[in-house]
Amino acid sequence: MTLTDPDRLFPLDPKTRDRARALYESVRDLPIISPHGHCDPQWFAENARFPNPAELFVIPDHYVFRMLVSQGVRLADLGVPREDGGPVETDPRAIWRRFAQGYHLFRGTPSRMWLDHSFEHVFGLDTPLTPETADAYYDHIESALATDAFRPRALFERFNIEVLATTEGALDPLDAHRAIGDSGWSGRVITTYRPDAVVDPEFEGFQANVAELGALTGEDTESWAGYLAAHRKRRAFFKEMGATASDHGHPSARTEDLPPAEAEALFLRVLKGGASAEDAEAFRGQMLTEMARMSRDDGLVLQIHPGARRNHSAKVFARHGRDKGFDIPGRTDYVGALKPLLDAVGMDPDLRIILFTLDETSYARELAPLAGAYPALTLGPPWWFFDSYEGIRRFREATTETCGFYNTAGFNDDTRAFCSIPARHDVARRSDCAYLATLIGTGRLRETEAFELARDLSYTLAKNAYNL
Amino acid sequence: MTLTDPDRLFPLDPKTRDRARALYESVRDLPIISPHGHCDPQWFAENARFPNPAELFVIPDHYVFRMLVSQGVRLADLGVPREDGGPVETDPRAIWRRFAQGYHLFRGTPSRMWLDHSFEHVFGLDTPLTPETADAYYDHIESALATDAFRPRALFERFNIEVLATTEGALDPLDAHRAIGDSGWSGRVITTYRPDAVVDPEFEGFQANVAELGALTGEDTESWAGYLAAHRKRRAFFKEMGATASDHGHPSARTEDLPPAEAEALFLRVLKGGASAEDAEAFRGQMLTEMARMSRDDGLVLQIHPGARRNHSAKVFARHGRDKGFDIPGRTDYVGALKPLLDAVGMDPDLRIILFTLDETSYARELAPLAGAYPALTLGPPWWFFDSYEGIRRFREATTETCGFYNTAGFNDDTRAFCSIPARHDVARRSDCAYLATLIGTGRLRETEAFELARDLSYTLAKNAYNL
Amino acid sequence: MTLTDPDRLFPLDPKTRDRARALYESVRDLPIISPHGHCDPQWFAENARFPNPAELFVIPDHYVFRMLVSQGVRLADLGVPREDGGPVETDPRAIWRRFAQGYHLFRGTPSRMWLDHSFEHVFGLDTPLTPETADAYYDHIESALATDAFRPRALFERFNIEVLATTEGALDPLDAHRAIGDSGWSGRVITTYRPDAVVDPEFEGFQANVAELGALTGEDTESWAGYLAAHRKRRAFFKEMGATASDHGHPSARTEDLPPAEAEALFLRVLKGGASAEDAEAFRGQMLTEMARMSRDDGLVLQIHPGARRNHSAKVFARHGRDKGFDIPGRTDYVGALKPLLDAVGMDPDLRIILFTLDETSYARELAPLAGAYPALTLGPPWWFFDSYEGIRRFREATTETCGFYNTAGFNDDTRAFCSIPARHDVARRSDCAYLATLIGTGRLRETEAFELARDLSYTLAKNAYNL
Repeated sequence: MTLTDPDRLFPLDPKTRDRARALYESVRDLPIISPHGHCDPQWFAENARFPNPAELFVIPDHYVFRMLVSQGVRLADLGVPREDGGPVETDPRAIWRRFAQGYHLFRGTPSRMWLDHSFEHVFGLDTPLTPETADAYYDHIESALATDAFRPRALFERFNIEVLATTEGALDPLDAHRAIGDSGWSGRVITTYRPDAVVDPEFEGFQANVAELGALTGEDTESWAGYLAAHRKRRAFFKEMGATASDHGHPSARTEDLPPAEAEALFLRVLKGGASAEDAEAFRGQMLTEMARMSRDDGLVLQIHPGARRNHSAKVFARHGRDKGFDIPGRTDYVGALKPLLDAVGMDPDLRIILFTLDETSYARELAPLAGAYPALTLGPPWWFFDSYEGIRRFREATTETCGFYNTAGFNDDTRAFCSIPARHDVARRSDCAYLATLIGTGRLRETEAFELARDLSYTLAKNAYNL
Repeated sequence: MTLTDPDRLFPLDPKTRDRARALYESVRDLPIISPHGHCDPQWFAENARFPNPAELFVIPDHYVFRMLVSQGVRLADLGVPREDGGPVETDPRAIWRRFAQGYHLFRGTPSRMWLDHSFEHVFGLDTPLTPETADAYYDHIESALATDAFRPRALFERFNIEVLATTEGALDPLDAHRAIGDSGWSGRVITTYRPDAVVDPEFEGFQANVAELGALTGEDTESWAGYLAAHRKRRAFFKEMGATASDHGHPSARTEDLPPAEAEALFLRVLKGGASAEDAEAFRGQMLTEMARMSRDDGLVLQIHPGARRNHSAKVFARHGRDKGFDIPGRTDYVGALKPLLDAVGMDPDLRIILFTLDETSYARELAPLAGAYPALTLGPPWWFFDSYEGIRRFREATTETCGFYNTAGFNDDTRAFCSIPARHDVARRSDCAYLATLIGTGRLRETEAFELARDLSYTLAKNAYNL
Repeated sequence: MTLTDPDRLFPLDPKTRDRARALYESVRDLPIISPHGHCDPQWFAENARFPNPAELFVIPDHYVFRMLVSQGVRLADLGVPREDGGPVETDPRAIWRRFAQGYHLFRGTPSRMWLDHSFEHVFGLDTPLTPETADAYYDHIESALATDAFRPRALFERFNIEVLATTEGALDPLDAHRAIGDSGWSGRVITTYRPDAVVDPEFEGFQANVAELGALTGEDTESWAGYLAAHRKRRAFFKEMGATASDHGHPSARTEDLPPAEAEALFLRVLKGGASAEDAEAFRGQMLTEMARMSRDDGLVLQIHPGARRNHSAKVFARHGRDKGFDIPGRTDYVGALKPLLDAVGMDPDLRIILFTLDETSYARELAPLAGAYPALTLGPPWWFFDSYEGIRRFREATTETCGFYNTAGFNDDTRAFCSIPARHDVARRSDCAYLATLIGTGRLRETEAFELARDLSYTLAKNAYNL
């Protein structure tokens, strides 16, 4: 018995399935390029063992605990820390049992496929997780984690990861990355410049963060020129530590390209604190264009991840803080929002901006038409809730006809769930091969082209898009 | 010859089709749970025969007459009554012939499948309805209706309906339900609390309705506290008469959670009449949150059916009144609109709110992410124009990966076309089994799980969601 | 070897594929009805040879050059003229080589399918276009173009075009159409009334255009009554020259139905110049309703093509002008926007309004519900980026269940790329037959009905919708 079907995600028609399998077999063993994600670099710096099955699979994975919460389990009972330090479940086995109790809730979800893939292919388990098998699972995983073969670096190598990008705030000293570099270990773990905390006037502690940015760089971040110069210095430092990209998680895709005096005045207003919602939004928009200009100079790829309404539940945010599964997507406009930035730099073929979305209605209506015209634009892969078989299918069906394959950036896993990385890339490779096989079968692509594209989508496009 | 293909709606791939058929056979004969609909309870109270084929299939069914109107037939020529009492066609056979004349217009629509299903499985007809067979059809159905086997209660039993919910306004005396209860008949026909006429300041006669609510309950509905108390009393009365749910059909999903003094002031403003559009919208939004609070107390499930632009054609509304096929869906926001209500009560695992939509773009972007996080939220089935094979397919494909199956509420038919009830549940069961078979075939679900889910989607989830 | 798969676009399941093939074979050779497009009537008036392969396939086709531009090729290097008359590539062979160099970019796009179809079926080429075959391709096509068999009229006849509509501005003298008529050639090439330049206050030279409209018609276009009368005269002239339709390309679908005095005041305001954005939008909206009223009188079909954000890149617009692949779709509302027009004339069964969209989210939510109720409304085929296999599939799947087939207007190619006309109609016929075969296979349509519908969708509906 196995947990995962060897032909999973391939088309149902037997002939097309054979084609998909052949395509998949040609890319299955390619190294993993993971150019955008949220693993903790400390794992690879320290190479300490993962503490226990609950810490590995449940507590840090918002996909997992949000589903359990949606059916009435309390976050605290899953060991998710409270902001006030109040009591939460500390017994990892109790947490694991609650997880197993709700494992049927994941039927039909990508989480279930990723988890089963990890259970089988990382841990060698072959019976389904149920309330009855919960303890056996726990013991099995716990024993494995105690061995050297399951330490972070060993898994990194076993996963065949060629490069893994993490994401750090602009103020991060990048000590973990330095330690990895100094350790002599050959794994390539790079950082990404994520300046939200010093760019978003509505971020907690924005003013103090900007002051710290000044202190770190020796620039006068109370002036617009100094503030921009400080960004340039931090970007250079991140680049030195391996970064090839920056990343920006704004509520919308709004951009601005204000005349310098107006931009400066706006900066001074938001720096005073108590910025209006409009000023905050305009400032974030102005900074996207500023970052794009810096990208032209230093070559960092600009990633825009807009559209999440963060911390939707006031109660959960107050009790447990950020990133607790209550970030909810919302409608996102691109065609109007990006115009100022695109008028400024969009025709520059040496700039690369990778666009993501949580609003699938924008794929065919806005994103593919934009990426199929502007040289600077590339589409990122289906993100977050759309990192899934259906998500990938809809993305390809909605974008390929308008912008082709070569205005897309391959796959990235965007995860903090380390063990899900091979599973996610596997789902993406299978889903793309299924799509390519369907194109062959319906006379929309020649077989030789499909093999070339399978490799491009699985490996080359991501490597090229992120200058890796 | 038959009108309906025994394998209809199953996947095309033979092996997957076999799987779908096996799943379907396991649920085909389960009783029907119909927790939301618009049948007339008087049918079951009186158990009188249905007047004629036109009254059964054409005149009350807005799906049917709107399609004929779209191709130039006049509503009056289909016997749809005029508001001014002016002349309309009164010959049911003439109406039936016009319907048969336009029957080809329904090709590819769910109405056609429901109608053919009723013709074949309820009335035993086996040749297609055409202008040529119109009279034979009419005569055949007319003779059947004259028999006891085609009276409402007999059909109810033959349709294997375990429970049927109707919908009544807050002021309804529920005499029909009382009569059903007093009659000793074993059929379970329950009501649903639908207070739009006393909650929506833009409803015709709102002030008089609120006054009547006061008179009915003995509460002072000119005060905010009395108005809320009156709702509580009516809800208790509806519950006594079998209701397990309330239902709310608002133009948007907006909610509010105003401080009591502001809510009171808003109530007093709208009660004066001439409320501004903004006040009317805010009041409806406040009342959703008030109703959710009452639901926590009395256990009625809260259904929200937002997003219809009612009575879109001014001419049709003036001539023929409400519910004449000219309610048109519009864009509907949930992520912002529901936040006040969710901040108030969304984390309560004992509250159940069932969300519907006419805006499919919200499935993957907003509704599944919300339902996959908040314990209080459950997704209702595809509604209205989306109660169809493609509608169900898109719903499952867009929601399952994010919120799974167990945050959805099974199927409901939402119909006033009694004979379509078995047909609609059959379409839903077939469509869901087709989806499950596809999941098995693509390695996303195990066969044993699929059989369990087939039963859940066809029966158990609806029963549980509505506390039946 | 062939460039195109004879079974392309048919379903993968063998039995369903056989059905699709049979349906397709029944319509493959039907004449082409092309009721909306942008071919140059001068081609048929003069019947001169097409200048060279680059002028035929690359320079005028914004689908083609936008994709090359998106990957860093400069418009000027593709021979696209500059507004300032500055230098651009003039060597057609060099342009052709750049095109061949980027031909892999079109993998999976409809452009690739149309181009391969033209290469094989119009020019008899049978090896793929690559950088290596670029010169051989060029020479082959160039030789063909030098022969009489490849002149416009010969191709028109070979393409089996029954009628081809072009589009001309309201001020166009229609000399080319007159010349075609006078030439004795039997090909039917008709015009379409496209008054954007005299209806849109934001169009370049609006005031001068309106003055010219007055001069042409002898009406006082400085008065509202005279302006409307001038439109009536031009419409009559266009109708005399063959037109059966008008066409309106507005940024939104907004309509207005102002009282005459307000409409007049609005007209006088926008005529003064410097109209506010709101006035300009309101005036365009008022004119849609005025045009609908004129359509009731003169029988021209009213086409509405809303939702393009024209000339999105300020740089490209300044350098190369309009229609250079930088028109980007945006969100488009219909349900609110069309209400004034529909309240005025929407219930008139003798009026025909054909609605198009670039916002697929409106298909199921707004357009199908509207077209499935209002007698005056018909849905146009998938437009522009959605003129493709996936586009047609999504259109049918999203609209058929709500408004059926008979509220849709068949196919139109909307192209200025003459050689793509047979290819586009072929894609549409294949895609529709694939859809019909799927309906048969899933028991949603009878085989005899499908054959009737295949003909309707390929030929009859377009002919009827445009009164051809």
